[in-house]
Amino acid sequence: MKIDQQTTDSLSALRARINAFVAERDWEQFHTPKNLAMAMIVEAAELVEHFQWDTAEESQRLSADKREQVGHELADTFVYLLRIAEVCGIDLIAAANAKIELNALKYPAEKAKGSNAKYTSYIQDDD
Amino acid sequence: MKIDQQTTDSLSALRARINAFVAERDWEQFHTPKNLAMAMIVEAAELVEHFQWDTAEESQRLSADKREQVGHELADTFVYLLRIAEVCGIDLIAAANAKIELNALKYPAEKAKGSNAKYTSYIQDDD
Amino acid sequence: MKIDQQTTDSLSALRARINAFVAERDWEQFHTPKNLAMAMIVEAAELVEHFQWDTAEESQRLSADKREQVGHELADTFVYLLRIAEVCGIDLIAAANAKIELNALKYPAEKAKGSNAKYTSYIQDDD
Amino acid sequence: MKIDQQTTDSLSALRARINAFVAERDWEQFHTPKNLAMAMIVEAAELVEHFQWDTAEESQRLSADKREQVGHELADTFVYLLRIAEVCGIDLIAAANAKIELNALKYPAEKAKGSNAKYTSYIQDDD
Repeated sequence: MKIDQQTTDSLSALRARINAFVAERDWEQFHTPKNLAMAMIVEAAELVEHFQWDTAEESQRLSADKREQVGHELADTFVYLLRIAEVCGIDLIAAANAKIELNALKYPAEKAKGSNAKYTSYIQDDD
Repeated sequence: MKIDQQTTDSLSALRARINAFVAERDWEQFHTPKNLAMAMIVEAAELVEHFQWDTAEESQRLSADKREQVGHELADTFVYLLRIAEVCGIDLIAAANAKIELNALKYPAEKAKGSNAKYTSYIQDDD
Repeated sequence: MKIDQQTTDSLSALRARINAFVAERDWEQFHTPKNLAMAMIVEAAELVEHFQWDTAEESQRLSADKREQVGHELADTFVYLLRIAEVCGIDLIAAANAKIELNALKYPAEKAKGSNAKYTSYIQDDD
Repeated sequence: MKIDQQTTDSLSALRARINAFVAERDWEQFHTPKNLAMAMIVEAAELVEHFQWDTAEESQRLSADKREQVGHELADTFVYLLRIAEVCGIDLIAAANAKIELNALKYPAEKAKGSNAKYTSYIQDDD
């Protein structure tokens, strides 16, 4: 597959680039779903670390420096997410779209509006 | 932005769909980077939970049922990843591509091939 | 409270030592349950990182060096665990003992023996 | 070892109780450091989940119900922490005390007082 950053499907291009990177280094042997799930949560935690002592407002005021670091953690998390989807044979976009459908049912706009309550707290009102 | 699943840039369509979902429910108020980082790691952990007692081989043998559940956790993680990128003003694809460039320098194929060692164990050989 | 490492209740001595450390630095203001939960998962992830590419067997063969690092992450996780219990007014030992009682019912030895299946896979057999 | 809740060393009693629970169910085979690190972070994330949408203040106002749930997650995290220390041959109390010594050097009270900055931001002032 030709890797072209100018394709309109930038996600496919990125996936191909990552797969080539891994193959070049003979790393598929380490990329079991178990290991990749561990690697991804480690990156997700590096993101959490940037905000652990921040107030909500401080977390919203990103300096250029902090935005760059946050970009690194998001990138690392994203790369592992793509690898797990790859090795498990899952279409990430399709899975995300399906989950949004499901969430729209769990959290109908008229009930969920402005509320941070978990759906179990009002869906049971339907019973 | 018109939400069209048939666009060749499926990632942009998904982003727009998620943003509309959040706006419809007036949830932006809860979507600080701090909260979103917490929400994302919770989903990453739900993925880890599927493999915690598996051997490496068991983790590779996904039943249809388990593949579906794994798809849900990946979807949830992906949705929060997109939201964090959104509220922090970060281009995920660009950040991922930049990180791969950096990793190619840290882990040159000729040194890293077949090894799971962290780059610090051989990059220092350059000194 | 007199901090005495020689008391037979080493856990109480450690708790007191940590509380004094935090108070001395005027850090209670940052120690909300929300922030502490984030800090603790960051440490738990630093532990995960040590094993992410290991096989199960490799993870069991700890070099002196790796055992020391693992000790650091366990210590950090433990310190935050104690702080969360402190600020939430929870007796950790009592909570752990209560949870073991609950688990003994969910995972009766005769059913759970040698199995890594979640209790939902056999508890429903009781219906 | 006789398990006695009335001993002054409640931590040792708890450790023994957990070890017996695991042995009774023939679960040591699943308790590699790798698997236990995964299990522990899953519990740490269940704690994070309770606070992900809370403001700092909301996270401090625990209802009796929420305190009970938080107690469960802390207990689960604690049990896995003790098991990892057990299988890795690490003395948790000693490791925690050693880490506090180290932290007192990284975060001297006169410099760290009232600040949530990482030690690297002021330790470098010593250069």
